[in-house]
Amino acid sequence: MVGSMGNSFMDSREEEEEEKTELLWPEELELANGKASESNGAGEDRAIVLGRNMHTVSFAIKEPESDDELTGEREGYMASVLAKYRKSLVERTKHHLGYPYNLDLDYGALSQLQHFSINNLGDPFIESNYGVHSRQFEVGVLDWFARLWELEKHEYWGYITNCGTEGNLHGILVGRESFPDGILYASRESHYSVFKAARMYRMHCVKVDTLTSGEIDCMDFRAKLLDHKDKPAILNVNIGTTVKGAVDDLDVLIQTLEESGFKDRFYIHCDGALFGLMLPFVTRAPKVTFKKPIGSVSVSGHKFVGCPMPCGVQITRLKHINALASNVEYLASRDATIMGSRNGHAPLFLWYTLNRKGYRGFRKEVQKCLRNAHYLRDRLMAAGVGAMLNPLSSTVVFERPKDEGFVRRWQLACEGNIAHVVVMPSVTIEKLDDFLDELVAGRSAWYRDRSRPSPCIAAEIGQENCHCSMHKK
Amino acid sequence: MVGSMGNSFMDSREEEEEEKTELLWPEELELANGKASESNGAGEDRAIVLGRNMHTVSFAIKEPESDDELTGEREGYMASVLAKYRKSLVERTKHHLGYPYNLDLDYGALSQLQHFSINNLGDPFIESNYGVHSRQFEVGVLDWFARLWELEKHEYWGYITNCGTEGNLHGILVGRESFPDGILYASRESHYSVFKAARMYRMHCVKVDTLTSGEIDCMDFRAKLLDHKDKPAILNVNIGTTVKGAVDDLDVLIQTLEESGFKDRFYIHCDGALFGLMLPFVTRAPKVTFKKPIGSVSVSGHKFVGCPMPCGVQITRLKHINALASNVEYLASRDATIMGSRNGHAPLFLWYTLNRKGYRGFRKEVQKCLRNAHYLRDRLMAAGVGAMLNPLSSTVVFERPKDEGFVRRWQLACEGNIAHVVVMPSVTIEKLDDFLDELVAGRSAWYRDRSRPSPCIAAEIGQENCHCSMHKK
Repeated sequence: MVGSMGNSFMDSREEEEEEKTELLWPEELELANGKASESNGAGEDRAIVLGRNMHTVSFAIKEPESDDELTGEREGYMASVLAKYRKSLVERTKHHLGYPYNLDLDYGALSQLQHFSINNLGDPFIESNYGVHSRQFEVGVLDWFARLWELEKHEYWGYITNCGTEGNLHGILVGRESFPDGILYASRESHYSVFKAARMYRMHCVKVDTLTSGEIDCMDFRAKLLDHKDKPAILNVNIGTTVKGAVDDLDVLIQTLEESGFKDRFYIHCDGALFGLMLPFVTRAPKVTFKKPIGSVSVSGHKFVGCPMPCGVQITRLKHINALASNVEYLASRDATIMGSRNGHAPLFLWYTLNRKGYRGFRKEVQKCLRNAHYLRDRLMAAGVGAMLNPLSSTVVFERPKDEGFVRRWQLACEGNIAHVVVMPSVTIEKLDDFLDELVAGRSAWYRDRSRPSPCIAAEIGQENCHCSMHKK
Repeated sequence: MVGSMGNSFMDSREEEEEEKTELLWPEELELANGKASESNGAGEDRAIVLGRNMHTVSFAIKEPESDDELTGEREGYMASVLAKYRKSLVERTKHHLGYPYNLDLDYGALSQLQHFSINNLGDPFIESNYGVHSRQFEVGVLDWFARLWELEKHEYWGYITNCGTEGNLHGILVGRESFPDGILYASRESHYSVFKAARMYRMHCVKVDTLTSGEIDCMDFRAKLLDHKDKPAILNVNIGTTVKGAVDDLDVLIQTLEESGFKDRFYIHCDGALFGLMLPFVTRAPKVTFKKPIGSVSVSGHKFVGCPMPCGVQITRLKHINALASNVEYLASRDATIMGSRNGHAPLFLWYTLNRKGYRGFRKEVQKCLRNAHYLRDRLMAAGVGAMLNPLSSTVVFERPKDEGFVRRWQLACEGNIAHVVVMPSVTIEKLDDFLDELVAGRSAWYRDRSRPSPCIAAEIGQENCHCSMHKK
């Protein structure tokens, strides 16, 4: 199963059956792979290959005793569990590098609102009868993003989603409703939610090859388009792939569609989960804008912006929404969202941060992230560790550390032989130095035996970036 | 469009086209219906028929001036917006009756965790590499619900969702993956997310009639099953319908399926958004349990339990999940959820409440809700207002108040000629008295002109409950 990410979803529905037989529980996998428990960095014995069943460490809910209110024991128990948990969050937050979440949160002024049950039911632009909502903030945030991506107020529709996945599910659904017999094209390195959408929506999905950088291979896209000339195209464009942070070339993709005879028969969804918000602030980066013929853009709110819970922003053209929406009188609202009931706190967090930082603040933070990413890449290379950094990205890809305990400690996301660090505003030079020192010390232990050197990762990051014994200059 | 809830979704995919042409913006609707702005309770002029565009009242995000940090003006502006918003939340929370949300929230001990970016990526039972999660609480909550619905730890799978809609989307998807050519059956009074799922998943959906109580009509279900004998059945069972709080008869439905030759060819999803958690504590209520051949149960966490953001609990049989899950190495986790990234705060809120209240606490609260619901129904009837209360329910249905300002002020959910109040733990006798006093005063003004009496709602709630001039005893 290792390294199978690109293959575990079907290219066509026929492969579905085959896939099902492949699925095993992690315990079974470990047995199948002959792997036993390994020791993690902290020295405990635990199975870490594909995680473990959480039943063993969960906090059970205990029925209160009838005299609990008198003795206060219950309150004491809960307080101690929560205090311990808080301590572990502090520690885990400190050692976090692998996922693109900005953990620098300062939302003091919002704590007064935490105990309200804020729910933005249905459409953000139409008030529902439920009064405890935060639509006035949500629409403020949406307006800001529509301006960023150059779509007029009266021409856009959008909402604040629960996460990047919901954005992709929505964008692809809008595409399918616009072209019911359309084929979904997505590069192999697209986020897994894109392939999940294809399966949910019963769409024919064609996977397109990628370059070593992680970018979609436009030549392969052209060839695959020509194989299916009779059906409209629904294309997922990655504005920062999950693993390598690669940005697909929107302009070349549009040109390819038009040259292949798909003019007015395509829909483009831009998955900008991470870089959709960073790219506008990168000098010389290609522009994501609704002045180009794209249908929707989604971005995550808990990544670069930073928000204590997953959330995202979805912007699409108003004209597409009529293909999707249905009038539901119960809410006195029209529901074109996926989720219906929506977390009303997320818009408050986003509104607060956008107001505080503004375009200027984000530009500064993006520059800092790119600078720190270059620093990390350069220091890795200098230490003899193969590494790659795409030009528009703050995601540094490098050889997967051999010790899984180390991987867990630094919460690195891995795929096959590679791992990555996503440099977010909360990732400082000091944190990177700590990480590098530990990595270098670790490697000298892991690769002490010269007959078993570090693996070649030229296939994943290119020969010029690989530092294995064969490719070392 | 008024009263069209039951008809605005398609029975079969062929009707889709027809539906699209029906969709209008609220502004267009108002013009089409010849309605102008009405005055609301507070005396302002505004269009309230189907809400209004939020652009007019949203809080725009302003780019900070470069000297803002020095002058503190920015902080001052934001603090004043938030303080005003807080005041409106207090007022709106006080006057809330129509939606099934428990607004009694007391989560003091959790405020220390609000600024952590807690994300439960992927499967709750398999730890991901991202360390800032709350799976240990999530699984504790899931175990509690699995026990409530009588499914063994090693036989269940589940997760904490973003809302009741996600539970329905998940349950119906599991059903479809179990029976790819199955037909979805759901009563006309099912939540709109059920019909949304059918459309998203490209499933053939058959709507089943309902009784006046809102319960599914089992005779009609039997007839419709026999019309489609060749295809497996995927059935949505309502444990409390949205509008009337009606509970479908699970036992009779299972018997109907088996007698109609569907043994081993059906999947049942129980939508227990509201009553899934209340029903177990109602004396003599039929039991929702996995000892019966059901596939999944979902319940909302922000309703009866009370949680500051929408969330829900989804429990299904572990064996079904293999039809859905895919191994995704990126997360070192297997993702069988809809959303992937999930709010890690919601499990903490649920864990906290379940621990504090326990089964005993919930039983007390359910009894209080039912008592107060009877009080409301009796007082409405005594005041000459037609009203209905289903035996297992705390949802009181009555004639829609004539003044839309009144409807908005009390945040009543309405459909056609009826409105409802969902009696939650936060709805006290005092609140109900205030509401009743205002309603009685309002009615004597609205129906002063005897030639235009209150409308007959016998069709919606039954002759025996209607108090119109024709049915008054």
